[in-house]
Amino acid sequence: MTTTGELRRRLERTRGELRRRRVDGLVVSPGADLRYLCGLDAHLDERLTALVVPADAGPTLIVPELERGAAAESLAGGLDAEIIGWSDTQDPYRLVAASVRGTQIAVSSRMWAGHVFGLQDCGLQPRDGQGIMSTLRAVKSAEEVDALRRAAHAIDAVHGEIDQWLRPGRTENEVAVDLDAAIRAVGHARVDFVIVASGPNGAHPHHLASDRMIEPGDLVVVDIGGTMPDGYCSDSTRTYAAGREPSERGRRVHELVAEAAEAGRRASCPGVPATDVDAAARRVIRDGGFGAEFVHRTGHGIGLDTHEEPYIVEGNASPLADGAVFSVEPGIYLPGELGVRIEDIVAARSAGPDVLTEAPRELRVVG
Amino acid sequence: MTTTGELRRRLERTRGELRRRRVDGLVVSPGADLRYLCGLDAHLDERLTALVVPADAGPTLIVPELERGAAAESLAGGLDAEIIGWSDTQDPYRLVAASVRGTQIAVSSRMWAGHVFGLQDCGLQPRDGQGIMSTLRAVKSAEEVDALRRAAHAIDAVHGEIDQWLRPGRTENEVAVDLDAAIRAVGHARVDFVIVASGPNGAHPHHLASDRMIEPGDLVVVDIGGTMPDGYCSDSTRTYAAGREPSERGRRVHELVAEAAEAGRRASCPGVPATDVDAAARRVIRDGGFGAEFVHRTGHGIGLDTHEEPYIVEGNASPLADGAVFSVEPGIYLPGELGVRIEDIVAARSAGPDVLTEAPRELRVVG
Repeated sequence: MTTTGELRRRLERTRGELRRRRVDGLVVSPGADLRYLCGLDAHLDERLTALVVPADAGPTLIVPELERGAAAESLAGGLDAEIIGWSDTQDPYRLVAASVRGTQIAVSSRMWAGHVFGLQDCGLQPRDGQGIMSTLRAVKSAEEVDALRRAAHAIDAVHGEIDQWLRPGRTENEVAVDLDAAIRAVGHARVDFVIVASGPNGAHPHHLASDRMIEPGDLVVVDIGGTMPDGYCSDSTRTYAAGREPSERGRRVHELVAEAAEAGRRASCPGVPATDVDAAARRVIRDGGFGAEFVHRTGHGIGLDTHEEPYIVEGNASPLADGAVFSVEPGIYLPGELGVRIEDIVAARSAGPDVLTEAPRELRVVG
Repeated sequence: MTTTGELRRRLERTRGELRRRRVDGLVVSPGADLRYLCGLDAHLDERLTALVVPADAGPTLIVPELERGAAAESLAGGLDAEIIGWSDTQDPYRLVAASVRGTQIAVSSRMWAGHVFGLQDCGLQPRDGQGIMSTLRAVKSAEEVDALRRAAHAIDAVHGEIDQWLRPGRTENEVAVDLDAAIRAVGHARVDFVIVASGPNGAHPHHLASDRMIEPGDLVVVDIGGTMPDGYCSDSTRTYAAGREPSERGRRVHELVAEAAEAGRRASCPGVPATDVDAAARRVIRDGGFGAEFVHRTGHGIGLDTHEEPYIVEGNASPLADGAVFSVEPGIYLPGELGVRIEDIVAARSAGPDVLTEAPRELRVVG
């Protein structure tokens, strides 16, 4: 669990970042940003819940009256934040305006539009707080890297038992239901996604699962992830062969993707532009003749959200921070035929890439 | 499953509403609004997915390139919508600007703030589309009332088997895990929430479940809901007595809440201001001496979202539409002691209130 000391350090960094950017305050709604700044795991709702962090004063937490008790009992209650409950007949946006000193505010990028308009109607001038929050969240503390390693090991454990569930003759959906239960059983609080994409379905990168029966020799993309009780996420992909060896071409594609993934992981060092990690993985696949079939970016940051900064994508020239944590997940997709993807979570550290995922990557025949 | 004909009628109503309000177009991001207008069940993401509905032209669906196949295969593919895929190196907001004819746009109320700012940066002038979408969605078609009745009957089936799981000696969490599985087993595609609030925990209206062991004589608030495969939601609360009769005061509170709930349901007729339904339920509780302990509104609309218009709250003078569907859920909360809530889903129809939930409401001793 995140400590109060860690939260205080995050709030102090936030105020520094606000002053540096000359913003009067930050207004954060439920989701990963709120959890990052005050530990509160609230749900998005048409009723406003918001943490207000003025650049030069302590924070105020504004919650619907009936959530006030839960907010006070959460980690947020230990932060010397003022906690204000509002009733259904009050205007919560006025409470925000009264708590922030000034009108120039940044808001969480995932705040609902309706709340943004509510703040505007009170005379506040909201802008996108994405830059502030991603500056803060893209550099993981040692405590956060530990949390992400625990999440990675939990999802490793599911891949480690895949032969219990994945075999020819079962449908993708049957396998997915079992994986759903397994993701919880290894300690996740929530399942975020389960992709079981067999044979030609593997060629759709975001296919979830279907009633398709898995056939012997199919390559099966298994991409799974969840959220641990402390809020940190897992995300890992392995591609398996069901029942027997795949086609010669399938094996060749798997080798190429594994080689590309390794090149991407090796390039994951602090100071390296994100685009160079993408290029390192992409070059291997292009040289192997499948450049046009690697249809997505190489990876995404991960933390309290499954997808966050830094994005490992062509054109992102930002250098990786010491403490950036992200996925490296090249893939090759052959429409009507097959797909292969291999995904690991890597922390860029000054001592070199720290690969958090440990499940074996070679092509396994299962079932 | 929603039909293409129904979707076409919804789009036509949307264009009429845009013209009536002199808005150039509507831009809708993933969620219930998108599902309502084109049947696409996409996920919210930092990569923009948006349906653009110009006031005077056919719709355009803008999706990340790798989602284009899935979008074309969905119901949206049968709507004569133009489907545009964008790649990671393109600016999707420019595609929206090119699809809408004009700059005055309404956006879904739950669009992420980051996307709102992206649209503004392209010269568009977004405003809150909440009014438009709730005007459309607050009046359910016969097809929608049928879908909500199926959802209500599914959750009724879970309450009907509560004595399999709820008994003294088990923890709230143990019961909640079983209810989670049961909600799926009766046909929901997703579990949205499971509240098991026993004894004093019942006094927190939004308590979820804890490791508290349920004790004989506890009143236990069980508030459960999920989303059916067609996207329509269920939501139903019953309060049970665990193992034996509750205290005299507990029984009295339950009777009063049941009486208030019935008064609320009876008041649920087209043309009646929403505030009057709230008042009808609240009056019973106030007259019974617990007015201050009924700490929340009486109900909320339900459809493709669990919480939507119309809100059954003091001060909402809007008359209920013929075809409005909402919860009636009064409660009494005695801190440190107990809580009771009873919740049903009601459709306001010209023939009188059509109560979709059918699970028995009298106080049952279970376990």
